[in-house]
Amino acid sequence: MANNLNGFHLIQTCPDCKARVGELRTSHGTVPTPVFLPVGSQGTVKTLTPVELKDIGIPMVLANTYHLYLRPGISVIEKMGGLHKFMGWGGAILTDSGGYQVFSLARLCQVSDEGVVFRSHIDGSEHHITPELIIQFQEALGADIIMALDECPAHDDSFEKVQRAMHRTHQWAERCQKSQQRDDQALYAIVQGGVFPELRRQSAECLTSLGFSGYAIGGLSIGEPKKVTLNMIEETVALLPEDKPRYLMGVGSPEDIIEGVARGIDIFDSALPTRVARNGALFTLEGRRNIRNSIYAQMEQPVDPGCKCYTCRTFSAAYLHHLFDCEELLAYRLATIHNLSFISNLMQKIKSTIQNGTFPSFRDAFSTGYKPTDEKTRLSQKQRWLESRKRSQ
Amino acid sequence: MANNLNGFHLIQTCPDCKARVGELRTSHGTVPTPVFLPVGSQGTVKTLTPVELKDIGIPMVLANTYHLYLRPGISVIEKMGGLHKFMGWGGAILTDSGGYQVFSLARLCQVSDEGVVFRSHIDGSEHHITPELIIQFQEALGADIIMALDECPAHDDSFEKVQRAMHRTHQWAERCQKSQQRDDQALYAIVQGGVFPELRRQSAECLTSLGFSGYAIGGLSIGEPKKVTLNMIEETVALLPEDKPRYLMGVGSPEDIIEGVARGIDIFDSALPTRVARNGALFTLEGRRNIRNSIYAQMEQPVDPGCKCYTCRTFSAAYLHHLFDCEELLAYRLATIHNLSFISNLMQKIKSTIQNGTFPSFRDAFSTGYKPTDEKTRLSQKQRWLESRKRSQ
Repeated sequence: MANNLNGFHLIQTCPDCKARVGELRTSHGTVPTPVFLPVGSQGTVKTLTPVELKDIGIPMVLANTYHLYLRPGISVIEKMGGLHKFMGWGGAILTDSGGYQVFSLARLCQVSDEGVVFRSHIDGSEHHITPELIIQFQEALGADIIMALDECPAHDDSFEKVQRAMHRTHQWAERCQKSQQRDDQALYAIVQGGVFPELRRQSAECLTSLGFSGYAIGGLSIGEPKKVTLNMIEETVALLPEDKPRYLMGVGSPEDIIEGVARGIDIFDSALPTRVARNGALFTLEGRRNIRNSIYAQMEQPVDPGCKCYTCRTFSAAYLHHLFDCEELLAYRLATIHNLSFISNLMQKIKSTIQNGTFPSFRDAFSTGYKPTDEKTRLSQKQRWLESRKRSQ
Repeated sequence: MANNLNGFHLIQTCPDCKARVGELRTSHGTVPTPVFLPVGSQGTVKTLTPVELKDIGIPMVLANTYHLYLRPGISVIEKMGGLHKFMGWGGAILTDSGGYQVFSLARLCQVSDEGVVFRSHIDGSEHHITPELIIQFQEALGADIIMALDECPAHDDSFEKVQRAMHRTHQWAERCQKSQQRDDQALYAIVQGGVFPELRRQSAECLTSLGFSGYAIGGLSIGEPKKVTLNMIEETVALLPEDKPRYLMGVGSPEDIIEGVARGIDIFDSALPTRVARNGALFTLEGRRNIRNSIYAQMEQPVDPGCKCYTCRTFSAAYLHHLFDCEELLAYRLATIHNLSFISNLMQKIKSTIQNGTFPSFRDAFSTGYKPTDEKTRLSQKQRWLESRKRSQ
């Protein structure tokens, strides 16, 4: 049922690297790529209204089939006229299949070729899902791009375990493809294969031979070293067709986005920019700034003086520091507006520099100026986050 | 130092009751009365931006000297150019003196004629305040209307205790008046006297003889029966001058506002509309609706179909129910927008019906349609809230 309604149009490729500019044509607007999708798992990008997302320049958001299936339930959203209407969001939506959540967030009971049995992380209730059901759910939700169900191994699983998960992911992708009824949604398959180049190659080859509207790279940025992530992206992209969009799942720090773009990625999503915002970490061109730091307590300038977002246009760093200090709800919102604006501006800059041929020098200048969170801190933060998710079960 | 810059202009009085329409002229706009001030104790009306407050039609907000003194500190706000600039709020501001918070929220150490020694509810640090300091703080904050320091007895204190507090409130009001340096802020005194008509009369007479820009009625709606509240308002208003604004502190349910207006009140403030919003209670013309109730889980209409606020224009009751169910931060914000819009519309309706002579019938129609929270529930809710505030020390 792959179709041209939600097609991808490649506009330009950087002569010096694999970076490229294109557009996704959806029934909810044309989405210029490279694009970053803010995460709205539960049908809301945390703290923001659809109007604010639009003002920031966000063309597409991600929502999660797993979360929406548990709450409020797929049938409720269908009854309300679909996910766009439910969320009040006129832009495009991509729904994740929920595979990653079932394997990371839920209590897993049984995985078989047929499907997955899991217990809800909210109330412990038991649920059975299959590739066919996941497509049925995503058709009911009505997103513009929908994802095949995949099995997600842990980043340190053995070759054999990762291989088994990969084969199952391929079978499930084919079943998803066959069960698709609607012709106005683009179905993307998810390349798995862990940190094993040979498996990544097998996965890319198998899925591209089936022919999907787009290809995601799953199972990365889940705890493996960054060097390995980048290497796996390169291995995989090399085997994906030029004329289809490539989506790197769960990647969203500014430095990782730029490196992903340089390796030929078109679509990114991550909860990172919004999650760290709520912890008080604000992006600047020099790196993340922690607004809770006392150096901001009396700073009259905004935290990022060059920024044109509502937060930086309107409030001093001192005010934002005060809101965080008092745990005022407005704090989380203003920080989220800033971080998403930063990423939105970054995507704009990426597109324009690819188009005018200066992307490589922009990439260099960015990486010279931007001091990313160091690898050790990054991995320990990631670990704490993964553990806190497990504890919340 | 009372002046005409922040003057009150009485426009019209209802021929059938004491309701009246007027306006407060401030250096941050003309504020039509009767007016309701949303509470932004810490320099933010919880969850909302200044732009949203303006869009809702809010002309003036309340901030709290006690909270701002503790965090971020008066000198920080002064350094940032004053409270309006700090908050990014171009409308008018009234700062409460903090008397009520010192007596209800802080750990009280010592009250003498000189002033109050208390410990912060946040970190237990000890602080000394005097009427002179409180004026100095409010001049540094730069609100349009500032309040004298008062001593607030509990609603069940003895006649003698309330009388002593009242006399001290009068002495403090006079010292506040004498220490005022700026001539662009209106200083209001606070009538005390608890639930004793004789003391209310003494307090109103004493303070009006000193001559303030406005008169607040304090020490009500703090746990006493509603009938007593209304009776005390009547007793007090009867002795306040016609040409000065009257401010009923801490009152803010729709039904109480209407009854306050009918008794000649011009200004109201209360955290109630915003606080109950965050608990999922939404105002409608029929009474409060609890959006968490399962009857809203699949309701396609907004919770208040007649309402024109952003929340009701954009989202179904089902979506709002879902956000509350998931404890999504957007929930608190959308509910706050609705409740403040409801109160804002109510104030508009009150003004227009006073002006066209139909206020008495509007008041009747409202009280016929609106089912307020019953007295027993209301008092137990209030008690729980007061206790939770004490616990948070």
